[in-house]
Amino acid sequence: MSYFDSASAAPLHPVARQALLASLDEGWADPARLHREGRRAALLLDSAREAAAEAVGCRADELVFTPSGTHAVHAGTAGALRGRRRVGDGVVVSAVEHSSVLHAARLGGAVTEVPVDRHGAVPVSAFGDALRDGTALACLQSANHEVGTEQPVAEVAGVCRERGVPLLVDAAQSLPWGAVAGPWSLLAASAHKWGGPPGVGLLVVRKGVRFAPAGPSDERESGRSPGFVNLPAVVAAVASLRAVRAEAAEEAAQLRGLVDTIRARVPELVPDVEVVGDPVRRLPHLVTFSCLHVDGEALLHELDRADFSVSSGSSCTSDTLAPSHVLRAMGVLSEGNVRVSLPRGTTGEEVERFLGVLPGAVEAVRRQLGAPAGAAAPAAAGTATAAAPESAKGAVAGSGGGEEPLVVDALGRRCPIPVIELARMFGTVPVGGVVTVLSDDEAARLDIPAWCGMRGQEYVGERPADRGVAYVVRRLS
Amino acid sequence: MSYFDSASAAPLHPVARQALLASLDEGWADPARLHREGRRAALLLDSAREAAAEAVGCRADELVFTPSGTHAVHAGTAGALRGRRRVGDGVVVSAVEHSSVLHAARLGGAVTEVPVDRHGAVPVSAFGDALRDGTALACLQSANHEVGTEQPVAEVAGVCRERGVPLLVDAAQSLPWGAVAGPWSLLAASAHKWGGPPGVGLLVVRKGVRFAPAGPSDERESGRSPGFVNLPAVVAAVASLRAVRAEAAEEAAQLRGLVDTIRARVPELVPDVEVVGDPVRRLPHLVTFSCLHVDGEALLHELDRADFSVSSGSSCTSDTLAPSHVLRAMGVLSEGNVRVSLPRGTTGEEVERFLGVLPGAVEAVRRQLGAPAGAAAPAAAGTATAAAPESAKGAVAGSGGGEEPLVVDALGRRCPIPVIELARMFGTVPVGGVVTVLSDDEAARLDIPAWCGMRGQEYVGERPADRGVAYVVRRLS
Repeated sequence: MSYFDSASAAPLHPVARQALLASLDEGWADPARLHREGRRAALLLDSAREAAAEAVGCRADELVFTPSGTHAVHAGTAGALRGRRRVGDGVVVSAVEHSSVLHAARLGGAVTEVPVDRHGAVPVSAFGDALRDGTALACLQSANHEVGTEQPVAEVAGVCRERGVPLLVDAAQSLPWGAVAGPWSLLAASAHKWGGPPGVGLLVVRKGVRFAPAGPSDERESGRSPGFVNLPAVVAAVASLRAVRAEAAEEAAQLRGLVDTIRARVPELVPDVEVVGDPVRRLPHLVTFSCLHVDGEALLHELDRADFSVSSGSSCTSDTLAPSHVLRAMGVLSEGNVRVSLPRGTTGEEVERFLGVLPGAVEAVRRQLGAPAGAAAPAAAGTATAAAPESAKGAVAGSGGGEEPLVVDALGRRCPIPVIELARMFGTVPVGGVVTVLSDDEAARLDIPAWCGMRGQEYVGERPADRGVAYVVRRLS
Repeated sequence: MSYFDSASAAPLHPVARQALLASLDEGWADPARLHREGRRAALLLDSAREAAAEAVGCRADELVFTPSGTHAVHAGTAGALRGRRRVGDGVVVSAVEHSSVLHAARLGGAVTEVPVDRHGAVPVSAFGDALRDGTALACLQSANHEVGTEQPVAEVAGVCRERGVPLLVDAAQSLPWGAVAGPWSLLAASAHKWGGPPGVGLLVVRKGVRFAPAGPSDERESGRSPGFVNLPAVVAAVASLRAVRAEAAEEAAQLRGLVDTIRARVPELVPDVEVVGDPVRRLPHLVTFSCLHVDGEALLHELDRADFSVSSGSSCTSDTLAPSHVLRAMGVLSEGNVRVSLPRGTTGEEVERFLGVLPGAVEAVRRQLGAPAGAAAPAAAGTATAAAPESAKGAVAGSGGGEEPLVVDALGRRCPIPVIELARMFGTVPVGGVVTVLSDDEAARLDIPAWCGMRGQEYVGERPADRGVAYVVRRLS
């Protein structure tokens, strides 16, 4: 079994496990109490705070422990906005922030989302241009959780500093690899991303940053994180952070090599794949790609059967049946999306086995869906249709070739079917002719243009239809 | 070493420890993921939820896990208020709720505090009378965390149901002993009070209760508790709850006997003690008393040196230098306050040892403070003064006996000094005469009337002074 989803959660680091067991015995009492058990707990808490601050690169009195990274983001965002409410309620964020940041920003303020480039990075100048007089807070992740792209945090922090706007950095994905550079003002992170136990997040608020905790008052953790502090987990989390930092350089070199192998080999092994994210400025352990004509959930299950655990930003793997907002913001293919995030200690053999399994898994899903095969797809569409007539339901409403407009009615069909139906009938479209896909699936907006890009055809645009949306494609070759 | 502060936190129950270790291995993954580690985590979470719901007496889909009891209270209060905002923003609470409830209520609404009787119980009729047309929410603890008094929750829940007001029950102290009876609407609790690990609270919202989660949206835990769920801790918490429930009847009988012993023997062994809280309707494991002329922090340290860990609601043990709001609401003595909360498995020998140590510890503190000794104190005051002249600073400003008003200037002195100064000079007050104590210590408002009650003297009242407050006492005997 190979678990390749460390960006979601990682098994407990052995050092964290040991620290947790010890502090369950030593640190269960209330550190606010005066008795010896309480004083012992308070000492443990102080020392964990010192060690965490050293790893983050801040003062101990700037750092509080929260019950999760999400709580750190929520408390940091709300407190910074409340502290600067005289300035305004504007929040500038990148379009690819973690949902916890976007939701906290939307609840607390008027949000400006800065678009990202096709690699998922936010341009420094665009971020700077979005800062206005009424901007109370800016938020930028250190690296993206879905595609691994590193953001220019230090540069953006510099611009924010010049403009007098505090920058909150969501460092959840990058903190195990190193401290965040630049003059940022607030920072949030989550221990279970670095082999710590769940139940621990970090919130750092630099001295001098205006901050007024929101929520009911509570004397714990400088009034910034309510509730009984989860001390055994805090001690374990900090022990794990120190341990992964000590191993970080070596581990990063190993995993970066494996990720580079995946990035290079997947497009060779699997037809019609788009590898996404910045090829260079990226997290060492994370790589994401999307497979045309593939159902993400089905592919996850195929890989699971072959003993690989990965995650996906495809719409079919989401409760809302919408593709990941990160993939949408990048404008890349969302169907058949796979995120591979390698845990510490992953070996080359595991990755080779993955690369051995993947092509068959993708092919199996495409076959189940009756998807047209190969990169020379348009001409082969008729064959694919003949091979899988049972999936042709509701495909071609108008007949091809003549004056009559060609329409693919994919209403009610979910990703990746609308694109598959388009591909299957594309062979009947004359060069220069257009075809319209009717779809009420959110993923079609992303995946039909992406298909055109991959196939070298022209995406004309979309218009509203009686039901769903009409996406128009012109055949160029 | 005897740890008698289980109402603050308890060491991990052996069953919880075992469950925690197992679920660190089995339940570290994200239960929202589709891979096998995720599915295994989801199964563990479902089964923990079922078991917790059974112990609470609710449906599984009514119960969510939060990072602490405080988070459960905050989320429950805010969500219930938001769900009923059309009704109004009134919140009715007892005056002795946990600070998390009071703070959440004050942040979210217009609070009416229902006074309690001298035992700390809220009268059902008074609670009912406080419900008005604009009351959106009522909150009542199942039992008090500082004095152990059980509240009439079932009766109050019935009244609230009749009036159409949802009742939130803070069941933190009582849930390990049994389910909460009555038609309550919301319930909050905390696992580290029942031998579970820190990092787990419960929030129950009954079907049909209007509830709109406050805070940024998050898909976890039905949208009612954001952040990555702390699954290993949840599994351990639920295992512990089942274990303590299985032992509850036997354990309660044992501890109730020990508590009854403490309640009966402490006033026999220690002069000038007030045992507080309801003598019958009370938690089995918790007993609280206050010692006249004693500094609470000093007493805690004396007991700590004798290997007993207890807590205190005295002002000197609080960051705000104010006595506990619970003792204030009850109108009982706050100085020298000791809360003993016995953990499971406490033996009669430990309690006997405590009763053996306590009188000497109290006496040592009184001696250090130069407090007048014994219940026949007034006459002995002169002796005490003579015995400890170094602590007489600033005591008597006017001389006794004549027409000139007697004033004890205790400005700038902290509890229990103002009361000690009053006692030490009381022998010079003629029967029928009055003495005024000037004090800027918050505890004096509680402790001077309490002293009068214990000494059979008349508390005339208070009036503002140039600095602090003037408390007037008449000598009756």
